Amino acid sequence: MRVVPVVLAGGRGERFWPLSRRRRPKQLLPLLSERSMLADTLARLDGLAAPGDAWVITARDLVDGVRAALPGLPDDHLVGEPQGKNTAPAIALACHWLKPLGDDVVAVVLPSDHRIEPTAVFRAEVEAAARLSLERRAIVTFGIPPTRPETGYGYIEVGTPLPGGAGAHAVAAFREKPDLATAEGYFRDGKHLWNAGMFVFPPAVMLEELQAHAPEIAALLPALPDAPGAGREASLERFYRDAPSISIDYAVMERSRHAVVVRAGFVWDDLGSWAALATPGSADPEGNIARGPVLLHESRDVIAFADGGLIATIGVENVIVVRAGDVTLVCARDRAQEVRAIVERLKKGSTEEHGFL
Amino acid sequence: MRVVPVVLAGGRGERFWPLSRRRRPKQLLPLLSERSMLADTLARLDGLAAPGDAWVITARDLVDGVRAALPGLPDDHLVGEPQGKNTAPAIALACHWLKPLGDDVVAVVLPSDHRIEPTAVFRAEVEAAARLSLERRAIVTFGIPPTRPETGYGYIEVGTPLPGGAGAHAVAAFREKPDLATAEGYFRDGKHLWNAGMFVFPPAVMLEELQAHAPEIAALLPALPDAPGAGREASLERFYRDAPSISIDYAVMERSRHAVVVRAGFVWDDLGSWAALATPGSADPEGNIARGPVLLHESRDVIAFADGGLIATIGVENVIVVRAGDVTLVCARDRAQEVRAIVERLKKGSTEEHGFL
Repeated sequence: MRVVPVVLAGGRGERFWPLSRRRRPKQLLPLLSERSMLADTLARLDGLAAPGDAWVITARDLVDGVRAALPGLPDDHLVGEPQGKNTAPAIALACHWLKPLGDDVVAVVLPSDHRIEPTAVFRAEVEAAARLSLERRAIVTFGIPPTRPETGYGYIEVGTPLPGGAGAHAVAAFREKPDLATAEGYFRDGKHLWNAGMFVFPPAVMLEELQAHAPEIAALLPALPDAPGAGREASLERFYRDAPSISIDYAVMERSRHAVVVRAGFVWDDLGSWAALATPGSADPEGNIARGPVLLHESRDVIAFADGGLIATIGVENVIVVRAGDVTLVCARDRAQEVRAIVERLKKGSTEEHGFL
Repeated sequence: MRVVPVVLAGGRGERFWPLSRRRRPKQLLPLLSERSMLADTLARLDGLAAPGDAWVITARDLVDGVRAALPGLPDDHLVGEPQGKNTAPAIALACHWLKPLGDDVVAVVLPSDHRIEPTAVFRAEVEAAARLSLERRAIVTFGIPPTRPETGYGYIEVGTPLPGGAGAHAVAAFREKPDLATAEGYFRDGKHLWNAGMFVFPPAVMLEELQAHAPEIAALLPALPDAPGAGREASLERFYRDAPSISIDYAVMERSRHAVVVRAGFVWDDLGSWAALATPGSADPEGNIARGPVLLHESRDVIAFADGGLIATIGVENVIVVRAGDVTLVCARDRAQEVRAIVERLKKGSTEEHGFL
């Protein structure tokens, strides 16, 4: 078995502004360690996947940033999408280039900007899912047992158990982000798991399912060169121009009889905002979380992130303070989701203000 | 009558850190307008005093900063003290060099880092005080009617009225910063005014009073050159080495029968901290005060000062946010006095932290 990570790294991550910027989105930031979340994502599979086997699909204008974050990634394995078309076209593309590698290959599609702990549990479960996918010709996805009625995530409705499937189930449905009442129902009924956007499958199986359920994407693949490399840019341009914008969840997973969901044993979090940096054990006895040069004087429940320069606080509580480049953000801790509102205001603002994006 | 401003600009102003730094104290900062408080101080006397007549006495290591803030100041009129010895020696020095200018000269000694409004009232009252000082051979000081039982200021106890003195009074005593009970007594009794540290006098009168009440200072003056200029540094060095450290209040004012206090009609504030930037009329309808590039989103009663770079806030209240150079300060508004605590921590800290002072 040869596990090949396929990392989807095209997001914009505006809610980590001002650390995240137009050309330096969340996945390129060192939010959870000293290296980028993207590098963390690949490092999590150390020992299971060879680093040189990994693929990264990102936005074209982020290619340089990704290359800097992953110096070991072969150039051919770094795809810059000329336009974003959601996950199905990107996954189809990867399968097209992975299939010739042989029948023992298992692709592991991973978002690049989530938190997953502990690493050892994750790696073991990915390995088990990869074996399951080979044995059953399955497309395996991880469902995360919800810990709260979260309205910010999509859900997977668990179907019938797989015979002899070690806890694996068929997928009954994918559910978009629910309203609160619906989320509370999902949380109680025990049949819904968070959709973490991770998929494990042999490329040949995914290609068959694309052929069956998303033929308008599959039909574009033969026009691509058989192997990535020089000269592929023009064909990528056409592929992304013509491909429909659709997620793999709806294009394939919800329609495929090969879709399987496994209840995850690891902790997962999409790290949706600065406030999400606070996790059990991450704070000091005063409830403070500090990264970089930070001086907290009689302050409590502060999240401070200094990227260059010093942050000093006196007598404040429940705030997020981020100093990054030419911007300082001070945000009430329960309003971290509204960082996007500031980013939107800047986008609409004067040319001068645009400099801060 | 020739009014000569003598501005004392040797303070360190640590409470405006991080905008104030070791070599850039409060008086060199543009806290109340687009120019430094020192330049504001001299501009307040426009039309009453000739800019080229002014003198500035500062610390030696601040000379370059003062020169940059006051490009019109003659080099000879800028004195860099090799060590601080409080106000009496500095004023004695100025008088030594002003006396030869003639008997119609009136020195106006001013701190360089206070807020005074409105300017027209201040200028008219300085002019009246200058005339009074010439007519009566008086050393006139302004007493500010207290608006609260402030424990952070010194007080002047008002003595007997000057006969025909247009509201001027003798000085009964100078009082150091009182405790709260004492301050409340001062506030109620109507006999105590805030000591704003401003003095108006003919230099010859001050020199006589120094001779009479502070002879250990007066005795050092003959060794100084008769006019400032090249070669004065060595004599300044000796003067400041030998002079006692004492304020003009105690060295002269409290002992002199020529001391007169005038009840000020202008508003005065020593601008002791970031919180003092909030004055009636200075805030927008949400109570916010913003200087520089600042984006306030659903925030109230914020004082934001951005010197380079952007400050953005979301959902915060009653905080002071200062972004200056390599430091961001976030401080509860009622704890602005504690900025010094941070500065002290940095002074005691590692070499790396020292960079932020």
